[in-house]
Amino acid sequence: MAEKSRLSLNQITTANWSVAQAVEGCARHGVRSIALWRHKIEEAGLKASVCAVNDAGLRVSSVCRGGMFPAATAAERRQNIEDNFRAVDEAAALGADSLVMVVGGCAGVGIADARQMVAEGVAALAPYAREHRVRIGLEPLHPMFAADRSVLVTIEQALAMAQVYDAREVGVVLDTFHIWWDPRVEELIARCAGRIFGFHVSDWLVPLPDVLLGRGMMGDGVIHNRELRHMAEQAGYDGPIEVEIFNRGLWDSDPDKVLAQVVERFEQFV
Amino acid sequence: MAEKSRLSLNQITTANWSVAQAVEGCARHGVRSIALWRHKIEEAGLKASVCAVNDAGLRVSSVCRGGMFPAATAAERRQNIEDNFRAVDEAAALGADSLVMVVGGCAGVGIADARQMVAEGVAALAPYAREHRVRIGLEPLHPMFAADRSVLVTIEQALAMAQVYDAREVGVVLDTFHIWWDPRVEELIARCAGRIFGFHVSDWLVPLPDVLLGRGMMGDGVIHNRELRHMAEQAGYDGPIEVEIFNRGLWDSDPDKVLAQVVERFEQFV
Repeated sequence: MAEKSRLSLNQITTANWSVAQAVEGCARHGVRSIALWRHKIEEAGLKASVCAVNDAGLRVSSVCRGGMFPAATAAERRQNIEDNFRAVDEAAALGADSLVMVVGGCAGVGIADARQMVAEGVAALAPYAREHRVRIGLEPLHPMFAADRSVLVTIEQALAMAQVYDAREVGVVLDTFHIWWDPRVEELIARCAGRIFGFHVSDWLVPLPDVLLGRGMMGDGVIHNRELRHMAEQAGYDGPIEVEIFNRGLWDSDPDKVLAQVVERFEQFV
Repeated sequence: MAEKSRLSLNQITTANWSVAQAVEGCARHGVRSIALWRHKIEEAGLKASVCAVNDAGLRVSSVCRGGMFPAATAAERRQNIEDNFRAVDEAAALGADSLVMVVGGCAGVGIADARQMVAEGVAALAPYAREHRVRIGLEPLHPMFAADRSVLVTIEQALAMAQVYDAREVGVVLDTFHIWWDPRVEELIARCAGRIFGFHVSDWLVPLPDVLLGRGMMGDGVIHNRELRHMAEQAGYDGPIEVEIFNRGLWDSDPDKVLAQVVERFEQFV
């Protein structure tokens, strides 16, 4: 069983809560870490967000998300990189363990060019992130998101991209929803030793209700979250474990009850 | 441009047509190969199906599908293998280039056990298929189907499973919808040289309308079908190219118009 002290609430799981409400929720439920989303930080204000998490003594396991590098024109790509600089500023102010990268899809530019643009985007961002002591966490997404969200789709590919950089600066974020299907998942997680900057859990429901908003609560689907968590630990990861569930049904529920269930399922299945 | 003579109509693209209607459609549109589905063969009768394709002088590029090996009990698994024997009989009677395997998902048994059951299923089937001179084509499906349809999700994995057997007996079937996202697609297709038993095309729409029934017509999405076809040719594949589109909208359209568009898009984008 994972220690409850490692549980981190990824704010998207309780999407109707503001930063302040999510922070209060964590305090109420004994959750010690939180992952914040940038649209929520913007809504609350960065300064107020920093105060809220500091006052509550919460660890910020990540800021979600930077990335989205590919674009048809050089001007747009430059703009995307500028936006990533702002994401680094926010992650630095919040003292986040890492800035999670959802690198962007191939639609509109083609997959080969998109991958090149991602490599260039990370290269442009890395020195700025280093200066601000923010770690870049490359998150491989499930291959079903290759067109619209992330051309980075396997652990192997994310690791290869990270390995260009110092292991203290660029690493990978493992989300069980995105990686559970990989026939080489055990071998690849082991190869990530020293570069795992984050670990996320949820579940894969059968049938899948929706590509984007159909993730399930741990225990409701086919993912062996505990096994995967063990693999990450074998590779040396002992940081926070984020529960990150994009689910329309959960979003329509009372966030406080959702968080109570998150805690319960975490102890039961992670 | 791919020669039109290589175009094969995978019957599911015109799902409302019977075997006889699909065969007539191919004749009308100058399509020389067809892939038949077992539920359609059953509907028409095997003997009538064999007569129809032979009378029309059509090549049967594949029979879809065998597989679906994993099950919770030994009795069910035995039953699944028996059903695969019948699929081999049908493929043999039709003189199909191969029997396509959709191996089955992990729901109900767990992914490690499911993969073991698939390996055992193929091992049980291979001697029977060899005897009947039917080639087994292992088709890796997109990872989004790992839970409910196929724990075989990468070319690499399918190839490794095939390589246990003689290259004339067990190979892989490449479907661009299932493999386009793979960062190693070029390298892996090259490694399949001598074992490519089939090649399927369609397109990945953005956004994806539906996990199962949202495939698009070539040219309407982000897949570079021509590039992938070239890769298969570099690996020595010069057989039929099946157009296999699961799409509710197409199924609700006039199949004759769908087939006309298939021919047009094939010449334009494959």
